[in-house]
Amino acid sequence: MRFPEPLERLVEELQRLPTVGPKTATRLAFHVLSAPNVQVEALARALLDVKSRLETCVRCGNLSDGQLCALCRDSRRDASVLCVVATARDLMALEKTREFNGLYHVLGGLISPLDGVGPGELRIGALLERLDRESPTELVLATNPTVAGEATALYLHRILSGRPIRITRLALGLPVGSDLEYADEVTLGRAFAGRREIF
Amino acid sequence: MRFPEPLERLVEELQRLPTVGPKTATRLAFHVLSAPNVQVEALARALLDVKSRLETCVRCGNLSDGQLCALCRDSRRDASVLCVVATARDLMALEKTREFNGLYHVLGGLISPLDGVGPGELRIGALLERLDRESPTELVLATNPTVAGEATALYLHRILSGRPIRITRLALGLPVGSDLEYADEVTLGRAFAGRREIF
Repeated sequence: MRFPEPLERLVEELQRLPTVGPKTATRLAFHVLSAPNVQVEALARALLDVKSRLETCVRCGNLSDGQLCALCRDSRRDASVLCVVATARDLMALEKTREFNGLYHVLGGLISPLDGVGPGELRIGALLERLDRESPTELVLATNPTVAGEATALYLHRILSGRPIRITRLALGLPVGSDLEYADEVTLGRAFAGRREIF
Repeated sequence: MRFPEPLERLVEELQRLPTVGPKTATRLAFHVLSAPNVQVEALARALLDVKSRLETCVRCGNLSDGQLCALCRDSRRDASVLCVVATARDLMALEKTREFNGLYHVLGGLISPLDGVGPGELRIGALLERLDRESPTELVLATNPTVAGEATALYLHRILSGRPIRITRLALGLPVGSDLEYADEVTLGRAFAGRREIF
């Protein structure tokens, strides 16, 4: 015997969460034990609801609590600019900046042959259909500045090159608040190459 | 809008857990989102079960899945030695050592006037009744070597001093694997005072 069975099982289940080891799981389980019933019930319900009530927006692929996501339902968003992201998390990160008022298209991943992800696994067909149907004027390829992200952006750029649409990419450069001295050389090189007039 | 409502709510509920901030909660919530349904359901069930199926052992105060805990039900345990601990967690820590084969008594806390916890708030009355009923020969006061733990042990020692029972306390000294150079002086002093013959 280590813990009584229900507690032992909770510790086990908590350990399946990322970055939760035996010690953290035990600490969390004991917290649950002493937490008010309503709070634990709310957590359990929230866990189940996320699985049962969330779906994928049929238009942009974002997480959604209905057929269309909150962004696609919002008529104030500018449908002429489409921002292509790998995941719904990236979309949410961009939304937090409040810099962008257009619509999104979630690919559902990045091209990565080593992981067995080719263009066919991503929502690229749906993107082409959207371009035909909605004909936006600009496409922002907001995939990560990583090998897989660059490969995906390049691939998209190539297959879209015939179309009369402006294709852009997020700026590369120094992170705000960072220190030039500690920037890696690739980033610093890109920041130099991408230098702009002071306005 | 930040996240769709069910996701936002899960992030909120997860944040009520100790050491889980907004970033961790978001990471966990997205993990839940992509985890298999059965796994999430098992976690939700385990959370609810811990609250509904666990009770307190009527005899020793340990966490239990029945009226008596697994330890009190186990006839192989030696009822002549009783180990007094502050919490069920302390009991479980001691059980992991496999050093002790007696029974426990969980006080449910430590005497701490600043926190408003006096002897009346602890299961001390139940301990006295057990001593009368079960008449063990030794009582190990395994409360923490802290101010509150020492105060509780001293208090118990005083109210039990008339009884024909051996009262012991856990040894204080250097932790195994530690470095003498880095030991704090109080611990080192106790280790010195408590030195033993090599056997």
